[in-house]
Amino acid sequence: MRRKVTLKQIAKELDVSISTVSKSLKNSSEISEDTRLKVQAFAKLYNYKPNNIALSLKNKKTKTIGIIIPEIVHHFFATVISGIEQVANEKGYNVIVCLSDESFDKEVINLEMLANGSTDGFIMSLSKETQQKKDFHHLQEVINQGMPIVMFDRVANEILSDKVIIDDQLAAYQAVSFLVEEGRKKIALITTVDYVSVGKLRTDGYLKALTDHSIDINDDLIIKIEDIDNCSEAIEKLISNQDIDAVFAVNELFAVVAIKAVTKKEIKIPEEISVIGFTDGIISKFSSPSITTVSQNGVKMGRKAAEMLIERLEDEDEENERYRTEVIETNLIQRESTKT
Amino acid sequence: MRRKVTLKQIAKELDVSISTVSKSLKNSSEISEDTRLKVQAFAKLYNYKPNNIALSLKNKKTKTIGIIIPEIVHHFFATVISGIEQVANEKGYNVIVCLSDESFDKEVINLEMLANGSTDGFIMSLSKETQQKKDFHHLQEVINQGMPIVMFDRVANEILSDKVIIDDQLAAYQAVSFLVEEGRKKIALITTVDYVSVGKLRTDGYLKALTDHSIDINDDLIIKIEDIDNCSEAIEKLISNQDIDAVFAVNELFAVVAIKAVTKKEIKIPEEISVIGFTDGIISKFSSPSITTVSQNGVKMGRKAAEMLIERLEDEDEENERYRTEVIETNLIQRESTKT
Repeated sequence: MRRKVTLKQIAKELDVSISTVSKSLKNSSEISEDTRLKVQAFAKLYNYKPNNIALSLKNKKTKTIGIIIPEIVHHFFATVISGIEQVANEKGYNVIVCLSDESFDKEVINLEMLANGSTDGFIMSLSKETQQKKDFHHLQEVINQGMPIVMFDRVANEILSDKVIIDDQLAAYQAVSFLVEEGRKKIALITTVDYVSVGKLRTDGYLKALTDHSIDINDDLIIKIEDIDNCSEAIEKLISNQDIDAVFAVNELFAVVAIKAVTKKEIKIPEEISVIGFTDGIISKFSSPSITTVSQNGVKMGRKAAEMLIERLEDEDEENERYRTEVIETNLIQRESTKT
Repeated sequence: MRRKVTLKQIAKELDVSISTVSKSLKNSSEISEDTRLKVQAFAKLYNYKPNNIALSLKNKKTKTIGIIIPEIVHHFFATVISGIEQVANEKGYNVIVCLSDESFDKEVINLEMLANGSTDGFIMSLSKETQQKKDFHHLQEVINQGMPIVMFDRVANEILSDKVIIDDQLAAYQAVSFLVEEGRKKIALITTVDYVSVGKLRTDGYLKALTDHSIDINDDLIIKIEDIDNCSEAIEKLISNQDIDAVFAVNELFAVVAIKAVTKKEIKIPEEISVIGFTDGIISKFSSPSITTVSQNGVKMGRKAAEMLIERLEDEDEENERYRTEVIETNLIQRESTKT
């Protein structure tokens, strides 16, 4: 027996995107009639079967939660998974993890694969590319078919679903205000490109804190990193060329690379430069000097996301459309990279 | 429709282990006849259906690889997953990850879940508890049913399957020899408890290197950590109480905790004490001082495991029983924590 044809195969055969295939099969008016008919004809010819999720859901529960995250090398996502595992185990659920590798297409494929009878619902953090494209039809489709999704950290406000976030803007605001209160005035920001929702919010918090404390914003002190694997050069250039007395970094890796660059120039931390990072991972804790960070409470975020999903899965009222957004509090963990 | 009863539920109902249920259903003589009959009767009553994997395999390919690893917060496992993802994507396979959380029962449950039609084969690293129990019947069962397994890092020599390992003993031998050649004589070892196969092999390499260089083995300089989350106290005690001039740590976390403890005592690295770790993660690279480590080449290990699995999945000769063990070479990455 041949395996049924997949969205991906149809896309490849017709040389169109997966998203185009998916929308054509839903007869979306976003797609030209010509393309829609071509895709539909092809799908019919090759016996494409969309997942009858709503149907299968009525018949059985898998007691499995699907997690789709952008990457796994990032300590934050690992801690969120730990939190989800804790609650899932307590409540008798299994957990399956898939990675989008920051790719929209992989996110769509993984969601299709897991929605195909393997899981009861999803906990997701969106890929960079999905956030950039602002194409969330795959999420909407799964929700429409009766499978709940809880989004965390990188969420889409356009989608009605339960969400778990931290107040990224407030957390950044508080961290930068802490630096100002230490007497810092020339505070550099190492952040991500703007389409990463949390990077943008943390940047906003930085800007607001400076403005509220009447410190002029100097664009030369702000760098936006596109490729996290190659951040060293840009950060070293910032530290070497600019006159700064503090660094606020939107993640732990940027912070530790900044510390390395500062130490190399024999500038003293925290006497001459303070550093604050984001995400409370093992690097921050064990680096020398240890790094003051905004703790995102990844475990707590994961626990909350799992609780919300399981609650919805076990809710008798399947039509419950009161979606909640839970805000997990952050806290600044003071260590050696700032003055006390 | 009721969900079919699972191994776990039967185990709970009858107050026996999952392993006992699984073996009883296979009519294993390891289990008393009394227990076997009880389990079989219960399973029959509740309509337990074992996975008809061999049957389903003949009919369809899922083009999905299941990965089961002990934990995800460990950078090494994250890099192996990256390597597996790379090859899987190149060859058109999806990847699903499940965590055993170092638990034998969770490993059995995850394997049962994924073998139930979700995946074509497995890439696995065993949980601590599985290695301690030396109970590998769940692996054997999956293999018998026609699903290939590639084991990596923590492997079971008792099971005939493809394997990807590094020569842990040789790698440790070379690292310790490097310290001896630097002039170090009082070399401490921070390792894991012996039932973790790789920890044991690295310990053996340490002992052999000292013996071959005619250095007496001092048991006071060897500590075996059971619980990785609470390693700080034992390591600080070692650094404070013993007269040492070098530390060899079997993972990156032990190394960075040792550096922290040494730095706290204002002992200079590498002038007074050299430190070598294992696993080339971001901590080693970005810690100050940066840490000389044995690189395990996690990405390479993952790539090789995926290649071996896919090769076997696509091999026409299903009865091919020539299993291979690939040894990935390691290399010492010299950084600031040792003299050059």
